[in-house]
Amino acid sequence: MLQEMEITSPNGITSFIGASTGQWKVLSIKTIVGSALPIVDYVSTVKGVVNLDLQSTSSWIIKSFTSNLRYTKRDEKQELNEKSRTLGNPEFNHAAMIPIKKSEAWWQLAQDERRKIFEEDSKHIQSSTRYLPFISRQLHHSRDLGEDFDFVTWFEFSSKHDEEFNSLCYTLRKTEEWKYVDREIDIRMVKV
Amino acid sequence: MLQEMEITSPNGITSFIGASTGQWKVLSIKTIVGSALPIVDYVSTVKGVVNLDLQSTSSWIIKSFTSNLRYTKRDEKQELNEKSRTLGNPEFNHAAMIPIKKSEAWWQLAQDERRKIFEEDSKHIQSSTRYLPFISRQLHHSRDLGEDFDFVTWFEFSSKHDEEFNSLCYTLRKTEEWKYVDREIDIRMVKV
Repeated sequence: MLQEMEITSPNGITSFIGASTGQWKVLSIKTIVGSALPIVDYVSTVKGVVNLDLQSTSSWIIKSFTSNLRYTKRDEKQELNEKSRTLGNPEFNHAAMIPIKKSEAWWQLAQDERRKIFEEDSKHIQSSTRYLPFISRQLHHSRDLGEDFDFVTWFEFSSKHDEEFNSLCYTLRKTEEWKYVDREIDIRMVKV
Repeated sequence: MLQEMEITSPNGITSFIGASTGQWKVLSIKTIVGSALPIVDYVSTVKGVVNLDLQSTSSWIIKSFTSNLRYTKRDEKQELNEKSRTLGNPEFNHAAMIPIKKSEAWWQLAQDERRKIFEEDSKHIQSSTRYLPFISRQLHHSRDLGEDFDFVTWFEFSSKHDEEFNSLCYTLRKTEEWKYVDREIDIRMVKV
């Protein structure tokens, strides 16, 4: 029966789990805009189906999937591929998880309007690129799964680059794109 | 326990179910390219979690979600909104379900490259627009859920417009975009 039910949970799903134990110890949970997320001591990321035991002890679960890039032109994609580092670097002892919900106004925009705000106005890719060599990151999509957040971005970096990560967040939050952000939580963690 | 497990199945999921009973009676299942899909007598669309009883008698289930449009500019979106008809029109007694898988080459392209092939080269939106008043349709995404198909498009129309629907399929299958289609099944149905 468990096997049968697992069919309803897609392969591509990653669940972010806030609980009393886990892979990353929470240092701070800050509500940037909108309603708060319950305080938890640990966060874990689990691929595929969420284990029932984990689920029963957890405070929240956010489901997501990774996907192809939606706004990236050829030359930008090339540069991202060249400079990006994969997650799991043993020297990167700090992590940040930033769930975001964008407004209905954002989702009513057409593709060309969203691209213009995202990059031509807000320089989301251009501003982020210089951080790529020392801040790993993975964007996850949640909106299409009916979740409370549209995106969860997961970052990993060395504690010696905490200030640079704060600077990246500060830069993005000042942009035109961020006027469409209705809810944002900033969770900082250290590897267990 | 069932309640708990349902949490792992997102709100936004629609399942297409091929089975021995259902909402739409199959008239034909034609493999356009790639490997075939098992023959079934009926197809149903189910929102949310797939019922276990349905699942045990079904021959196949394809999970999907609807999403925002990925390639549509403001003026195109405007025209689509004005001309599109919703599904469920009582006069539309025929349906078509077309699951498609695109090649890895397609998914390695950047957003601007995919847009160029999709519309500037293949005129996907422009060619489809004149059919909108008498052919309802909904695009569903499956790739991000780890399914065998990337997309399922569901169409409804009156049997008196069968030839126009065939003409739409013919037009799209000749395009540059369709060179990136690795697998395509064309299922035609009549309302039960």
